[in-house]
This record gives sequence, C-alpha cells and structure tokens, in this order.
Amino acid sequence: MRQRYMNLERLVNPRSIAVIGASQNPEKVGHVILKNNIDSGFDGRIYPVNINASGAIMGLKAYRSVLDIKRPVDLAIIAVPAAAVPGVMRECGRAGVKGAIVVSGGFAEVGETGLQDELTAIALRYSMPVIGPNCLGITDPRTRLDTLFLPSFKIDKPSVGGVSFASQSGAVGSSVLDMINSESFGLSRFISYGNAAVVDEVDILNFLCKDRETRVVVFYIEGVKRGREFIEVAKRATIRKPVIILKGGMSEAGSEAAHSHTASLAGSTQAYEAVFRQFGFTEAKDLKDLFNFSKIFETQPLARGDRIAIITNGGGTGVLATDALYENGLELAKLSENTKRVLRKAMPPIVNVRLPLDMAGDADDKRFAAALDAIGNDKNVDAIMAIALFQTPGADSRVAATLIHYGTSMSKPMVVVSMGGSYTKTHKSMIESGGVPVYESPGDAAESLAALIRYSRYRYAKTHKV
Amino acid sequence: MRQRYMNLERLVNPRSIAVIGASQNPEKVGHVILKNNIDSGFDGRIYPVNINASGAIMGLKAYRSVLDIKRPVDLAIIAVPAAAVPGVMRECGRAGVKGAIVVSGGFAEVGETGLQDELTAIALRYSMPVIGPNCLGITDPRTRLDTLFLPSFKIDKPSVGGVSFASQSGAVGSSVLDMINSESFGLSRFISYGNAAVVDEVDILNFLCKDRETRVVVFYIEGVKRGREFIEVAKRATIRKPVIILKGGMSEAGSEAAHSHTASLAGSTQAYEAVFRQFGFTEAKDLKDLFNFSKIFETQPLARGDRIAIITNGGGTGVLATDALYENGLELAKLSENTKRVLRKAMPPIVNVRLPLDMAGDADDKRFAAALDAIGNDKNVDAIMAIALFQTPGADSRVAATLIHYGTSMSKPMVVVSMGGSYTKTHKSMIESGGVPVYESPGDAAESLAALIRYSRYRYAKTHKV
Repeated sequence: MRQRYMNLERLVNPRSIAVIGASQNPEKVGHVILKNNIDSGFDGRIYPVNINASGAIMGLKAYRSVLDIKRPVDLAIIAVPAAAVPGVMRECGRAGVKGAIVVSGGFAEVGETGLQDELTAIALRYSMPVIGPNCLGITDPRTRLDTLFLPSFKIDKPSVGGVSFASQSGAVGSSVLDMINSESFGLSRFISYGNAAVVDEVDILNFLCKDRETRVVVFYIEGVKRGREFIEVAKRATIRKPVIILKGGMSEAGSEAAHSHTASLAGSTQAYEAVFRQFGFTEAKDLKDLFNFSKIFETQPLARGDRIAIITNGGGTGVLATDALYENGLELAKLSENTKRVLRKAMPPIVNVRLPLDMAGDADDKRFAAALDAIGNDKNVDAIMAIALFQTPGADSRVAATLIHYGTSMSKPMVVVSMGGSYTKTHKSMIESGGVPVYESPGDAAESLAALIRYSRYRYAKTHKV
Repeated sequence: MRQRYMNLERLVNPRSIAVIGASQNPEKVGHVILKNNIDSGFDGRIYPVNINASGAIMGLKAYRSVLDIKRPVDLAIIAVPAAAVPGVMRECGRAGVKGAIVVSGGFAEVGETGLQDELTAIALRYSMPVIGPNCLGITDPRTRLDTLFLPSFKIDKPSVGGVSFASQSGAVGSSVLDMINSESFGLSRFISYGNAAVVDEVDILNFLCKDRETRVVVFYIEGVKRGREFIEVAKRATIRKPVIILKGGMSEAGSEAAHSHTASLAGSTQAYEAVFRQFGFTEAKDLKDLFNFSKIFETQPLARGDRIAIITNGGGTGVLATDALYENGLELAKLSENTKRVLRKAMPPIVNVRLPLDMAGDADDKRFAAALDAIGNDKNVDAIMAIALFQTPGADSRVAATLIHYGTSMSKPMVVVSMGGSYTKTHKSMIESGGVPVYESPGDAAESLAALIRYSRYRYAKTHKV
C-alpha cells in the first residue's frame, strides 16, 4: 500500500543527482538535462549515467549504472526510453536513491497503463518518491536544479522568491514558468508532475504547505485522484498560506479534452467549485489570473476589509477603477474627516478631496506621497489602488520610488495600475522589482484585490474562531 | 441653433495650422504643441501665434493674431489662458478659420460654465467646429498633426492603421493611445474631446463612421448629451464598421465619480447596456478589452458562426482554451470526416485527431501548416484559435511565419495564443506585425472571438433582411 504522504524533501532539495540517459548527443533529452544542470550551476554533485558510457560525459565521470556510483544519490533524473524505465528504477531502488523524476513519456498518456503500474509498484516497493512519468520535473532557483528538457534560451531565467508552482501539464507549466520569470516576481519551487503515477497533487500540496521557502502555492490541475486526502491537506494548507488553483476541464468539452490529455477523471464543475470555496482556495478562472493573483499574494499583507481607496493622476481611469471595484464586489472607502483635512492642505485647490481621489494630471511624487501617507493612516481604508499614468508630465521615476516606499511599508495592501508603452513598462518593472504589484488595467487590479480580500476573510474566520 | 452634425473634415485633416499661444518658453503648453508638430513633421503650413510675438518662434515667422496671417488657416490650436479663449476664438471666426481645438482647461470642469457657454456661442455664430475645451485634441499618424501637450518621450510613436480612438477623458486617451502605439496594431485617428462644448460624441461618431481611413471605431465615454442623435448615428455606423465602446460610470459610485470628473450625466447602466446591444455596439467592460477587441476587429474577417477549432502544441492549454470557449458562449467545432482523414495522414501517430487538436510538444511549422491548411478548408469550422507555446523545442520563427501566412489568407478569423517571456514576446510582436492578433491567455482570446462573432451576427442580420 502507498504511504499517505510521500516525503519529497530530498527529492526537491537534492545534494546529489544522477542523470540517467545522459549523453554527448545534443539531440537527446538526457544531454539537455545534464547540460542545463551544469550550466545553471547545480549546487551539488552530478553523476551522468548511461548504459553505454565509457569515460566522461561533458567532462564528468560517467557511470553505466546508478549502482556503480558507490556514493549517496539523492535524486535520479530518468530520461531513457519508456521500456527501459522499470529496470533503471529497480537499480535506483537497490542503490538507495532517495527519489526519482521520470521525464520519459510513453506511459498511461498513450495507453501504456501496464508499464505505468509497474513503475508505481517499483516506487512503492522501495518507498521511493517518484515524480512523473511524462513530466518536465523540477526547476529551482535556489539549488539551481533544472530537469526541464527545454531549450534554455526559450525560457527567461527565474529570480528567487516565494511563489511555488505545481502543474500537471508540462506545456501549461513551462509557459507559466516563463511568464513568472519574465515578470518581476520570484519563484520558489516549480514542479511539473505529469501522470502522477506515484507522487501526486496531494503529496505536493502537503510538501508545499510545510515548505518554509514557499509563501504562495499555485496549482494547475486537470483532476484529483485522492479527493478526500486532497481536501484534508488543503484544509491545513490554506490556513497557513494562499493556495491559488486553476482547474482545467471545467466545461464538459474541456473535461473530455482533459481526459484525452492526462487521462484525468474530471469530476463535476460544481463539486470542484464548492470544494474550492469551502476550503479557502483562490480559484483562478484563466491563466492570466495565476499571475495577477500570485503577485498580490506574494508581496502584500492580508486585508482587514473591502473598503478601497482609489488615488489617481487621471480622472477617467479613476471612474473606470470605481466601476471595477463594484463589478468585483468591493466598495469605495469613505475618508475620515481628519484625512480630508490633511488632504485639503496637501493638494492644490483644483483637487476635489473625495474618493476616487483625482490628483490631476500634473501630480508629482510629492502629491502621491501626501495622498498615500494620509490614506495609509486612515482606519476607514482597508486597501489602496494607486493609478499612476506615466504619460503625464508629473509622473516619473520619483513617483515610482514613492509607490515602492508606501507599497512596501504600509500595513494594508496596495496595488498600482499603470498602462502604456515603453516608458510606462520601464516604470512598471521598477515598481514590481521594488515589491509592489502593477496591473495594466483597473479590472485586473480590482479582481486581484477581491481575491486577496476573499482569502483574508477566510483566514480570519479560520484563525479567529468564536 | 447648432447644426445636427458638425463637419470635422478640415479640422481633422488640416492643410495649415495656427498654434495660438505658441512660445519660446519650454514650460508653456503652446511651446510643446508647436515643437511636437515641427518634430513630427506635420504635413502642412504651421503658423505660430502669440500676442507678444515679434519675429520668429522656433524658426517660424510668428504672428500677433490669427487675423494677421492673411492666408487660409484650416485649424487653430488654442493654448492660451481660459479667460483669453473667447477673444482668440472671435478672431479665428473673423479670420475664417475652419475649426479649432481648445486644449486650455478652466471651463465647466472647474465650474466655469459661463465661460464655456460663451465659447459654445462663438463657435456656433461662426459655424466653426471646436474640439474641447479641456482636451488633448488630435494626433494623426498620416498628417502627423499632434496637439497633445505631453512629453513626447513618454508615449510610443504610432504606426498607421485602421483603429480610430475617441476619448472624452484625456488621461484614458493618452494611456490607451500609448498602449495602441506600443502594440503592433495601427492607429488611424486619435481624438480627445474633453468637455465637448461644441463637437461632441455624436459629431465624432458621424465623422468616423464615414471616414475611409477608419476601419474600427473605439470610444471612451462618460456620458452622452444628445442621446437620440447618438443612436441615429450609431445605427448607421455599426452597419458599416465595428464600434467598440467603453462607458465609464457604469456603477453608481463610478457614475458619481464621472460627474465630478467631466460633469457628465451618466444615465442608467441598464439603459446604456440595452442601447449598446440593440444597436450593435461592442461593449468593452475594461480598458484591456479595448485593445483585445480592437486588434481582432482591425485584422480579421467577420465570422460565419461560432464553431471554433482549437489547435495547440500544448495539451493543457488546449483544455483551458476549450473551457474558455464555453465560458464565452462559443462552441468547439466538429471536424469533417475529410479533414480528419487529411490530418491523420499529416500528423504523427501519437496525435489524436480531434478538437482541441493537441499536435504535441514537438510540433514544428510543417505540422502547424498541415493543421491550418486542413482546418482552414473545413466548412464545419467558423474560426480558429491557434495556441503556439514558444517554449517548446519545435516552435520558432518559422512557426510564427506559418501563423502569419494562414492568419492573413484564410476567409475565416484566426487568433493566436502565446504566453511567456522575452523569446515568446519577440515572436508575439512578429506575428502581430504580420497582421494576426496574439493574446496572452486563452480567456482573452475567447472573449475577443466572442465579441467578433456577436458583431458578425448583428451585421449579418442587418444586411440580410428577410
């Protein structure tokens, strides 16, 4: 019988790896994986293994079998033809390898369920956690482990951060990973787990829930095999950290497509949505929600309520942002009398002191600072949406610096809205590198605030039982 | 009494302009406007006018009054203090100027309704179409007229195309303009019309409806003053070309904000939505819809129905795209038997010939071409969503070229979905420059297809009366 939860610690943080199927031939997956780990500077020992090996591969002593290594191997990365996988796995088991990632395809996804069952049985016999088969595996910006067999020039390099992303689908996984890396927020763990023959979403959620490096958990799933265990783990996870989930196959036709893709039993949409709501998941409806939600959860504190202050240097965008709040079930805050008094002094007479606060097109960093300072201290405001249109004469990198200062030092969440071309994008990157999320439309910003506030409520209710 | 429709022809396509308030002082709005038109290479005569002028401004002979020019002036751009505007306008009227743009603020938006009424009265007395006051005016990539008084380095340069954008709000206008310019689709006209004291949305819609350079009309409005006339013009406009509209102030709080912003009477949300639906407008719910919808309408033909084929080189993304179709009221097409036969021959055995067509992670340009060729000819398919994940080994610039070829030569609409970092963004730009819209998520692509299909149905119903 399988353990309730596989221990992924060594597999995810290996001190030594064996690349089985390593090759001098650049066309081979085993070549790409070995090269990527050497190039990325994997922080541990690397053992190339190839049944035909003699001498060295890429300058590293090569072995014909993992059994020949005679030193502890934490993780075996297996990239050999499907039929050869069981034999290789048995050797890993006997060699005491702590875990394996089978990147090879050719199992249940093409109808070879017998072969996949054999793989599962071997893993369980040796109590060896195995990720895959038919997966991209792991990339980790801390250990610099990288089992993705994708051309490295096609994917941006990650920066270290708090967002961990687990994906059943390799394609969704790699494009989301690339997006995360290209945006200015940081990656903690990336795990593409494919057919989930051994390690499944339950084990991964359990690991990420406890993992101290992970502040936000993001999942793409097409189906959950162990429903009850998943809910058990989820209950513990969502009390500790936000879990964002995108479920593929929510429509009937999508669910059929998912079945053909990863042989997932999709389950009813209603059932999934009920579970997501009840257990505090943050449901993403589309891929772009994954990024939009991840960046607010990674950087911003939880909110105490849903009263939002909008400040802007463009009136029309303030109007649209107000609409977007109500569209997403949020409210425009009402400023306290004291805040109004302070703002009346700080703003030029042309500025009407009410929310949305239209600070006019010539607003500069000082005006932004005055507004953020006053509103940041106003107990009637739970969160702030700051709209900074960088096309205006007064907006420049000092405004960006001001937004970073307040967005990282207040005890309430803040998001920024900026849209435009290259001048704006440069400032957007600055602000996001500084730790404050920037959205390209008021709608995306309001949706993300709403997700944060929903989760804040759930957390509060669960941790403040009456 | 005012004319039913102001004739904007000369105002929008002037052969000569007078910049009133032109100045050597770089702090002055009149300086920025004069400089921008010289720098952009405005395609006509430029006359600087300043009451204190003597000699030349920026190398051009300067005049103390527009009356001194003694040659025809098509357009006066007025950037003088509000109180001086009526006098200047009277001179324009007497000099036979064909139209004016008043960029100066300080009218109804700050309570100076009397001054604004005076402006209106003078314009009507001389039958002179006037845009503004309190507006950015016009930028036009063909004539290179540019009345925007924004630092030019803050806004990307436009390329010439078929999308015309009119905005009541200058802030929304300039950031949308910047976004349009930064994306690879082309601008026809940009008109920021501010307080609409004379020329209003009715006149502008009437002009853009007839304008041969404009293929897609995009509007940001906060309120419509002449409701009946707007509907009359809209009825004619939406039969000829798509009209995308974003209405600020759809929520109660947003509507209050709009009133404070442009003194617009917002009208009920329900009334607006009913009008939009009945008269074939494409309603944008958020700023990002403006871009998403504009680019499909600018480049793609109308659709004959709502049966969509999805092809992908990543299975999971195909699942999500299928969900997104149904979420947006569209359907997955069913391939004809002939198409299936052709595809079975063209695809490797691992590919399951059904929709969504998952061509596998190693799909290259030949596989994309085979799929697009077969599905492009299938009468059971009304439109195509092609997902190209450029992180995969087979996807490169030849795939981009293939997508451009099919996306610009088929008689049915096609959109592309690609998401990722710099390698992907390079290819996204290539494909969009080639004339095929690219979306960063299946949800955005499906929403945009749905907007195109809704409009296609409206057009068909209006032009094929039984």
